[in-house]
Amino acid sequence: MSGSATYADWIAVDWGTTHLRAWAIGADGSIRAEAVSSKGMGALARDGFEPALLDLVEDWLGGGKTPVLACGMVGAKQGWEEAPYVPIPAKPAELVPMRATAPRDPRLSLAIVPGLKQANPPDVMRGEETQIAGFLAREPGFDGILCLPGTHTKWVHLSAGEVVSFQTCMTGEMFDLLARQSVLRHSVAGEALDPETFAGAVSDTLSRPERLAQRLFTIRADATLNGTGATVSRARLSGALIGAELAATRPYWLGQQVVVAGAPALADLYARALATQGASARALDAAPLTLAGLARIRATQKEASLA
Amino acid sequence: MSGSATYADWIAVDWGTTHLRAWAIGADGSIRAEAVSSKGMGALARDGFEPALLDLVEDWLGGGKTPVLACGMVGAKQGWEEAPYVPIPAKPAELVPMRATAPRDPRLSLAIVPGLKQANPPDVMRGEETQIAGFLAREPGFDGILCLPGTHTKWVHLSAGEVVSFQTCMTGEMFDLLARQSVLRHSVAGEALDPETFAGAVSDTLSRPERLAQRLFTIRADATLNGTGATVSRARLSGALIGAELAATRPYWLGQQVVVAGAPALADLYARALATQGASARALDAAPLTLAGLARIRATQKEASLA
Repeated sequence: MSGSATYADWIAVDWGTTHLRAWAIGADGSIRAEAVSSKGMGALARDGFEPALLDLVEDWLGGGKTPVLACGMVGAKQGWEEAPYVPIPAKPAELVPMRATAPRDPRLSLAIVPGLKQANPPDVMRGEETQIAGFLAREPGFDGILCLPGTHTKWVHLSAGEVVSFQTCMTGEMFDLLARQSVLRHSVAGEALDPETFAGAVSDTLSRPERLAQRLFTIRADATLNGTGATVSRARLSGALIGAELAATRPYWLGQQVVVAGAPALADLYARALATQGASARALDAAPLTLAGLARIRATQKEASLA
Repeated sequence: MSGSATYADWIAVDWGTTHLRAWAIGADGSIRAEAVSSKGMGALARDGFEPALLDLVEDWLGGGKTPVLACGMVGAKQGWEEAPYVPIPAKPAELVPMRATAPRDPRLSLAIVPGLKQANPPDVMRGEETQIAGFLAREPGFDGILCLPGTHTKWVHLSAGEVVSFQTCMTGEMFDLLARQSVLRHSVAGEALDPETFAGAVSDTLSRPERLAQRLFTIRADATLNGTGATVSRARLSGALIGAELAATRPYWLGQQVVVAGAPALADLYARALATQGASARALDAAPLTLAGLARIRATQKEASLA
């Protein structure tokens, strides 16, 4: 930090299982500083949250109390304090952050954005509701499907600013487990995917989803017997799993307007998978959405308190 | 070991990825001793195999040379010495063990049973061919499907003593990864399964295999929102994955005579899954099959060398 202090009007916090990211926001809404650490919820006991946050943001605190607005797993049962799920249908921009028990440090106040829950089929999200608020802040009239690919991919039906329904698939987590720890790890090393093989594997899985369990070991056997390379094997694994996800989420994307918001390479992969089925999806970088969502939720709260 | 020596006429060895098991066989075919260690192929460098075997069997060696017949991953590329796969169709009882390079210890000679390979769809087995030989030694006229459930379940079509075709599913490995390491681990602890939930999950997955990717995270969400217990959650996960396996292997079991040979609880689970589809399967304890297969393969070789 330089000698000139960076006082924040408020602090935005994205606190997931594996990461903690904070932004100092000025009175004019500009980002005055940004910091990140690996102290995600998964690495912290309950009394470790406040010190982990102070490590990142202490230099941004002025003389008075600085409000912190956080989203993500920080509000889970195993988080700093539980922010109970809000049932859908719900408008992400109008979610009321839970005021948390006063932090020990008198310079901080903390509010946590609640996650969303769906009764049937049972589903939950925590963190993505804020990304959705950020997406809707940019595209307020959007009516269609927002796909947020990642460890647990969310497919979200949005209409009139509301989350109408959503569905979670564990594709990213399954891919990582199979690619890094199963017998397939010997065959799918590296990061590169053969694009034609990927498209073929997506289509094959969608047309014969009942054969998924057979496709996986075949990847290994083919590499063993025929020396098939890692870029082809990895494309087969990724295509089979994303194909299975598209099979399970067909009502979400068939004939719908779809936006895929994620890390650029992953969003592009999902868009290409959808393209094999004649579905055109717009890919979007999800990186700015969380901060945009926190700002939107805070602005809604301020307007409500002035009304 | 006691003071009285246990000389072996020959030594049978089952050497997998995670275990090493050896039997001292007397001239009359009886088991004179048995030993086991955790020095599987996965834990050994190439020059570690012979010492690992000697640790177990040295007390069984007499003055002359004792033949060792081994099966399993010991014959893989990463094993003691590679025993190349034999293409199917093949008769497991008539597989010719590969004579390995002479061990350093002059009291040992080593032969390794080769695995089987299938060209299309590509598939391989190593170790199961010996279990199949053991099964056929007991039931030489068997014509039908032998299912060997485990980490990598094999479905094997047998006719006239031959392996006609086979198919591998990674169900066991996927279950372990998901149950122990994914977000589902919080919901499926323990070993117990609710049997009705299991049967329902198998049937649901077979009737709608395209929905598999959606079913998995639902297990977690339902436990989070509704407090669903671990025996129900575990039954859902197991039923979904075994259901997906049955969907992929339908040509193997539909209208066929099926024997499931595995660890008793697992063989019973597969037989119950098949029963939900009106397929009756006989469950069998696989424990004695490997030794029976090694004995059968050795006997065939001795007959051939005398002919």
